[in-house]
Amino acid sequence: RLRGPGPGDSRALHAASSSLQEVMLTSERYGVRRLPFSPLSDGDVAFFEGVMPGRVITDPEELEPFNVDWLKSVRGCSKLMLKPQTTAEVSQVLRYCYERNLAVNPQGGNTGLVGGSVPVFDEIILSTVLMNRIISFDKVSGILVCQAGCVLEKLNEYLEEQGFVMPLDLGAKGSCHIGGNVATNAGGLRLLRYGSLRGTVLGLEVVLADGSTLDCLASLRKDNTGYDLKQLFIGSEGTLGVITAVSILCPQKPKAVNLAFLGCQSFTKVLETFTTCRAMLGEILSAYEFMDEKCMELVEKHLKLSSPVAGSPFYVLIETSGSSSTHDEEKLNSFLERAMASGLVTDGTVATEDKKIKASCHFLLLWSLRERITEALTHDGYVYKYDISLPVGKLYDLVGDTRARLGRRAKNVVGYGHLGDGNLHLNITAESYSHSLLDAIEPFVYEWTARHNGSISAEHGLGFKKKQFIQYSKPSEAVLLMQRFKAMLDPKGILNPYKMLPSSS
Amino acid sequence: RLRGPGPGDSRALHAASSSLQEVMLTSERYGVRRLPFSPLSDGDVAFFEGVMPGRVITDPEELEPFNVDWLKSVRGCSKLMLKPQTTAEVSQVLRYCYERNLAVNPQGGNTGLVGGSVPVFDEIILSTVLMNRIISFDKVSGILVCQAGCVLEKLNEYLEEQGFVMPLDLGAKGSCHIGGNVATNAGGLRLLRYGSLRGTVLGLEVVLADGSTLDCLASLRKDNTGYDLKQLFIGSEGTLGVITAVSILCPQKPKAVNLAFLGCQSFTKVLETFTTCRAMLGEILSAYEFMDEKCMELVEKHLKLSSPVAGSPFYVLIETSGSSSTHDEEKLNSFLERAMASGLVTDGTVATEDKKIKASCHFLLLWSLRERITEALTHDGYVYKYDISLPVGKLYDLVGDTRARLGRRAKNVVGYGHLGDGNLHLNITAESYSHSLLDAIEPFVYEWTARHNGSISAEHGLGFKKKQFIQYSKPSEAVLLMQRFKAMLDPKGILNPYKMLPSSS
Repeated sequence: RLRGPGPGDSRALHAASSSLQEVMLTSERYGVRRLPFSPLSDGDVAFFEGVMPGRVITDPEELEPFNVDWLKSVRGCSKLMLKPQTTAEVSQVLRYCYERNLAVNPQGGNTGLVGGSVPVFDEIILSTVLMNRIISFDKVSGILVCQAGCVLEKLNEYLEEQGFVMPLDLGAKGSCHIGGNVATNAGGLRLLRYGSLRGTVLGLEVVLADGSTLDCLASLRKDNTGYDLKQLFIGSEGTLGVITAVSILCPQKPKAVNLAFLGCQSFTKVLETFTTCRAMLGEILSAYEFMDEKCMELVEKHLKLSSPVAGSPFYVLIETSGSSSTHDEEKLNSFLERAMASGLVTDGTVATEDKKIKASCHFLLLWSLRERITEALTHDGYVYKYDISLPVGKLYDLVGDTRARLGRRAKNVVGYGHLGDGNLHLNITAESYSHSLLDAIEPFVYEWTARHNGSISAEHGLGFKKKQFIQYSKPSEAVLLMQRFKAMLDPKGILNPYKMLPSSS
Repeated sequence: RLRGPGPGDSRALHAASSSLQEVMLTSERYGVRRLPFSPLSDGDVAFFEGVMPGRVITDPEELEPFNVDWLKSVRGCSKLMLKPQTTAEVSQVLRYCYERNLAVNPQGGNTGLVGGSVPVFDEIILSTVLMNRIISFDKVSGILVCQAGCVLEKLNEYLEEQGFVMPLDLGAKGSCHIGGNVATNAGGLRLLRYGSLRGTVLGLEVVLADGSTLDCLASLRKDNTGYDLKQLFIGSEGTLGVITAVSILCPQKPKAVNLAFLGCQSFTKVLETFTTCRAMLGEILSAYEFMDEKCMELVEKHLKLSSPVAGSPFYVLIETSGSSSTHDEEKLNSFLERAMASGLVTDGTVATEDKKIKASCHFLLLWSLRERITEALTHDGYVYKYDISLPVGKLYDLVGDTRARLGRRAKNVVGYGHLGDGNLHLNITAESYSHSLLDAIEPFVYEWTARHNGSISAEHGLGFKKKQFIQYSKPSEAVLLMQRFKAMLDPKGILNPYKMLPSSS
């Protein structure tokens, strides 16, 4: 019934129709070859059926969406997906795979943007989709403990009923799993206010490559007893262990949330507006997002959204979250008066989240203008995506330089992102994929970023698509040390192979 | 001139006069023996003199204060202290020590409370005291980069001039070094508001045991390119590498700081007051500290401080930090009215930090009542110190149970700490050290803590004194993995030996 990988499968990394060429190119360029893992046998499938009857998927059609990433840019050819419900089952699976030398691709909501969440060849897909149980929530401390497969949005809804929120929020919230968020150290929209997962994740339960379980699922805000092992798994993209449960510190739900959507005449004014608003809004500032006019054009064109603010080269979305609507509105108004009077901002609109009217239209529209840029871009053609960290003052120079370099070869070159975190999303669209355009972009973008001491992946991770570029952001000693950690924790390399770390030459 | 360790030196771990017995006991109980590192030779000293002329200390009297910890509870007998100024010098020292198999004790401000910062035998003291240069500060992002030996208070003063503050604050701020803070993952008074160093430290430069330098000194808020290696060094207590430089995200200096010092009639009311104030003060709450009446008695008796609030079994210190004095005072007043009206609080006083009058007496007094408890305890006799994390509701039960267990054998059993972080400082005083009293306390306190899923070291670390108790807070698989990391990064075990991890049996 199952066929082992033959010679044809060494090029099994073929693309979804829309971007066949890119992946072939990737495969060629970096000579990605299937590593000598065991081929899957009927006996293996029978074993897994014994472990989790009815939760073993081998039907190719049913497997299809889990072999392709959200962007439809890479495709694997896994013949098997497993859906464990418990940590014990994950442990049994990995112990078996480790002994049999079978490669495993841990998968959450499959919303990653760098090809980290789908198999490259025929790795077994280990899905957390049925590990969606909330284990406990403590209302005094705000500490939530849950299984790795809980969907972020569901967790947030559960918490809101208790007067709390998740410390992270991102566009993919309706599909992404908290385990995947932790495994990729997801950033998103609330980082400016609540900090990164490295601070808010208090504990993890992880199954290691050999099937042993590491219980670091503490629910304490402070614990200085030994090395903080869990940190190694946060952002490890499934290459060091499979996260099975998460303990996370959740902030209280703010009583008042306000938005201001503003137009600025230059990027310098965007920066000055940031400095001013940080000083005047202080502790209630919860997001400072920016987008250029090209983004706005695409959102209006492809999604038919209509912006209440127009005619500016840059737009800024400011969110405040606080415990007093009166105080917060006073702070926001003082800031807006100052920003308008001093010419930092030329146009703008404000909105307040109204909990009584669930569809508070104006409020939702303003967030949509920013949150749906990714979606609008996919309608514009083939998208080259870059997720860059830079010192905030340099942030937009990269967009201008890229635009100048590519000229009419690109359809659109747009910049937007989490300005408050120094995080730029640079996106380039073209009618279709082309080798020569990619060569014009890379390594130009990476070299530019390295020259300005930036990071070539602020929050998306490296996954399959960017792993060969790690040296633009990390010195070789660091990469070597990472490879030693990988070899120590996963000596056979069965966990999410071909991802994150460059192939050792 | 220098004598190698003879047979007598295998018991070289002798105590400062005040607590000779405790350390002898520790030594006996755990059979701590000097590991077979090379003895220091005259040739070694000559080598170091060549590397850093005039910054090589061999005079026993000059060495004395660096061989004894702040609590005067443990003493080493190092014959050499080195004071490098640059990372290159640290690297040269470690490369040499690694080759020669010489043990090294990295030392910052020597303010640790678990015997981690002083040598146990004759380890070379590698002091960061001359590595006190600020490398850069960016006012837009709030990112500070500095050498490891900068004193916390000095950094804070520097930042205040620019409108920022350090994200951590602790009693030892006048002496402790930022490198030591990071190496011990120091918690302190601002953690409730600004989170732990795991979130605020953005980058580290570390010299590894073999002298190689790991440059992870990024100054970016987001960077997902590979494993976050720096996390392994945060809280590693000098056992994996020597931190030479730190990049840290600093919050803006709050425009308004208010204090409320309140009396509560029971610990239940302390907890209810916390829940109420967190809801009503929200984002401006920056500290929620508590102390019991015994603490207050000791502070008044030994330090002659006079509290404006008296006659309650518990006291709470609440600090707010915000960007509008009007708004903050309104929030604080509403909260206080509610707390008084509902009987949560029976007495209290408030104070506002006044920047014009540097010695804002009332404000400083209130903080002193809490910050100087540690000092008051040292005047009360021999102190057994415990730094425990617990689910916040159970926090004070441990004090009551310990008090009941010890009865009149203890002079005082007191509890205080960072309630908002679930962190209890349990301290027991007696006229002098006694074996039998220690046996009555340990492992009772550790077992009690483990039974309630707490941590036996919330923020002090394990150092020399608590390393054998790690299993009360960490499963054996985790400890084993830590030992493997240690063996990988420091195969000869020369960095801060006898600390943090239990001796392998």
